[in-house]
Amino acid sequence: MAMLNSLSGYPEWLPEDRIVEQRMLQIIQETFELFGFTSLETRSVEPLNVILSKGETDKEIYCLRRLHATEEEADKNLGLHFDLTVPFARYVLENRSKLTFPFRRYQIQKAWRGERPGMGRYREFLQADIDIVDSHPLTVQSDIEILQVMGRILSVLPIPTVNLHINNRKLLEGFYRALEIEKINEVLRLVDKLDKMGEEKVKLSLVDDLKLSPNVAAKCVELGKIRTSDGVALQEQVKGFNLSHPLLTEGLDELCNVLTVLNSTGSSNVIADLSVARGFDYYTGTVCEGKFADFPKYPTVVAGGRYDNLVSDRGVKLPGVGMSLGVTRILGLVLHEGLVQASRKTPACVLVALVSEQHRQQSFIIANLLRDRGIPCEVYPRADKYGKQIGYADGKGIPYVWFPSETGDNFGEVRDLQTREQVVADPKTWNPQEDKLRVTVVKNEEVYKSFLNSSKYSKK
Amino acid sequence: MAMLNSLSGYPEWLPEDRIVEQRMLQIIQETFELFGFTSLETRSVEPLNVILSKGETDKEIYCLRRLHATEEEADKNLGLHFDLTVPFARYVLENRSKLTFPFRRYQIQKAWRGERPGMGRYREFLQADIDIVDSHPLTVQSDIEILQVMGRILSVLPIPTVNLHINNRKLLEGFYRALEIEKINEVLRLVDKLDKMGEEKVKLSLVDDLKLSPNVAAKCVELGKIRTSDGVALQEQVKGFNLSHPLLTEGLDELCNVLTVLNSTGSSNVIADLSVARGFDYYTGTVCEGKFADFPKYPTVVAGGRYDNLVSDRGVKLPGVGMSLGVTRILGLVLHEGLVQASRKTPACVLVALVSEQHRQQSFIIANLLRDRGIPCEVYPRADKYGKQIGYADGKGIPYVWFPSETGDNFGEVRDLQTREQVVADPKTWNPQEDKLRVTVVKNEEVYKSFLNSSKYSKK
Repeated sequence: MAMLNSLSGYPEWLPEDRIVEQRMLQIIQETFELFGFTSLETRSVEPLNVILSKGETDKEIYCLRRLHATEEEADKNLGLHFDLTVPFARYVLENRSKLTFPFRRYQIQKAWRGERPGMGRYREFLQADIDIVDSHPLTVQSDIEILQVMGRILSVLPIPTVNLHINNRKLLEGFYRALEIEKINEVLRLVDKLDKMGEEKVKLSLVDDLKLSPNVAAKCVELGKIRTSDGVALQEQVKGFNLSHPLLTEGLDELCNVLTVLNSTGSSNVIADLSVARGFDYYTGTVCEGKFADFPKYPTVVAGGRYDNLVSDRGVKLPGVGMSLGVTRILGLVLHEGLVQASRKTPACVLVALVSEQHRQQSFIIANLLRDRGIPCEVYPRADKYGKQIGYADGKGIPYVWFPSETGDNFGEVRDLQTREQVVADPKTWNPQEDKLRVTVVKNEEVYKSFLNSSKYSKK
Repeated sequence: MAMLNSLSGYPEWLPEDRIVEQRMLQIIQETFELFGFTSLETRSVEPLNVILSKGETDKEIYCLRRLHATEEEADKNLGLHFDLTVPFARYVLENRSKLTFPFRRYQIQKAWRGERPGMGRYREFLQADIDIVDSHPLTVQSDIEILQVMGRILSVLPIPTVNLHINNRKLLEGFYRALEIEKINEVLRLVDKLDKMGEEKVKLSLVDDLKLSPNVAAKCVELGKIRTSDGVALQEQVKGFNLSHPLLTEGLDELCNVLTVLNSTGSSNVIADLSVARGFDYYTGTVCEGKFADFPKYPTVVAGGRYDNLVSDRGVKLPGVGMSLGVTRILGLVLHEGLVQASRKTPACVLVALVSEQHRQQSFIIANLLRDRGIPCEVYPRADKYGKQIGYADGKGIPYVWFPSETGDNFGEVRDLQTREQVVADPKTWNPQEDKLRVTVVKNEEVYKSFLNSSKYSKK
């Protein structure tokens, strides 16, 4: 084995941290499936022309090349995907004759970007996406459903509270058109940075760089400052500008509808935030960004929206809406800071001790009887002293140690390492305490509390 | 969206096929965990010097490069991993102070090889590995345990029967040393090809290329032809050569031990096959290859063995044993040929119909009540005629359609699309038939039978 290298931007977890990730993925997958989304995986690579057809992401792409490839080889035109939305759009077009529409899929896969690693930003990361794509126009109800799914996941995961900040591209575009702004996308991108750049800098940039009048720039910024969870208040505030455009009306109605339905169905933490625009050009209606409520300086952990034109090719155009959950980004905070932890380092519930080399068969039999009943266990590999075998179980957090009988007249005894109780037991009938059968994952409330007060991600 | 490209060697499944894959992965994962193996994921990329340190695989490696990278950038020295064993060895060395030994992990991830795609051979494929690595010497019991886990998985998966062909490198090496052969690895590699090349060609190559005497070559081939499931018969046949070497004795004893224990614990389909050697240089003891019993011409679907020196660096040396299941390779046969299929195309058990746009809230409420009770469902997106809504459910194989009441005095009725029964029901208490709640995956016995007789992978 050659020299070791730790690679920045390519996170790897220890076994106990991976258990936290697995538990989160299980919750995510179960919720997606409860809403009838079906799983999809696409290949990790796409032709560069597919990857580069969406947005300004070329600097971030990893290209592939066989080690001994010649210059002419086709492989050099492949790159690793940077998200799961573009590959999904490609997949739908390629397989549309075999799919039933509306097509509802989820996709949990790695993506890669050659960016400089930083706070919550990795070169290899795991995303969990859902999307609905239809061959008919989609109503705003699909946007609501996608938000409901993500809202439900975020409320069930053992992580800090996430607020969903929602907006609507039509509303923004209609507002800008009513103000006779031409560089819509450029204004969108600047307003999207209100949080990071601050009000004054955005205003300055709108005037200096995009040549808006100070009055118009001020209105764009004022609109972007609106934040409310109340549909009626939202209507009033936007109408207060006295601007009129069909897109503005349509977008405002959609946003109010989304807000009202989500509030009425118990999705808390939904906020209309008129600064949210999202970077990608392909969004056409509802857009959303979710951020940790208590750590506003940590980047967005979930995002997405409506795209009516992304899935299109030679006369076919399928509207879609979707959201993407940044699994690695969330773990980057909660695991690095120890906010969440697993109850043990292994799925094993029982360590079956080894009495002596001659008794090995007996340990194997006990272990297999337990496994046949769904109780995960492992056999200690050597006939070490019992103290050492118990120490091994303790170190991994395995709750029970089974000591096979040395005489062989019965199956021996099982010891609860926490209570120190030891009882004669039969692997065909013995049951662990219900809460000890499976490894569990919980918030570490103490660490969380002190982190809340000290964190560089918190509000000043 | 740019022009579509289908890429050879990068398989993608349709939703119903992905469900088969998911179900298989679930069985694999559950079994790994029953044996107390903990999950691990390593990054997809490794420094090229790590990748290239093991065996002759350089031609197959995909290197990474940022699209706009300069020549000097470090990124150009990264490649996608071609298996999960080498990254695992690197991970263990890098983290050995934080791990508890014996370290038992499983790893289910994609790997990439720039090979020419062919029968069961892909450029991107999914592997499921288990390994045990220890800081003490490992006994042959660990080899047996790894084989037990894989044997159990293969017997539970809804796939054609797989035979595990086992051998021992020490046995082969001892045998060759007793014959005073010097090019041990070269002979190993040729004997490993007995199945593909046939007896005569291997013999010829041993004599012509490796300069063995015809007598010695014949003995190597004779040894390689031994196949038996009986430990006693194995001892007799090998001893019949009247050769003696400590490694030969040790290897033969280990192989008999493995065979005897596996037979006695009910692992069927285990065969001592003295032609098996495995390509990689790092194996030092037990080696194993699993092949479909009825499709001997299809390549190996599971493989692995003991490696006592792979995990080593500057004075540290950790023995290990592991096996790798070729998930994509198995699916490449069973999905392509339709031998296995899912009961429906979606996790959804119920389609909640939409009466009219005004009744949408009602459909949402019914769906959420079902979801709260763990029943996966989706709401039809438009107020189409009921016939069309039923047709949609039918097309995806969703077993039930829920019709909300048009008057709103109750929750409406639910229809079983198979029995055509329709009953008044309450989403707070209604239950689907138990076998319809979750999508199931079964062997398609009819297809299987006709494939067995006609397949190009079958025996002549």
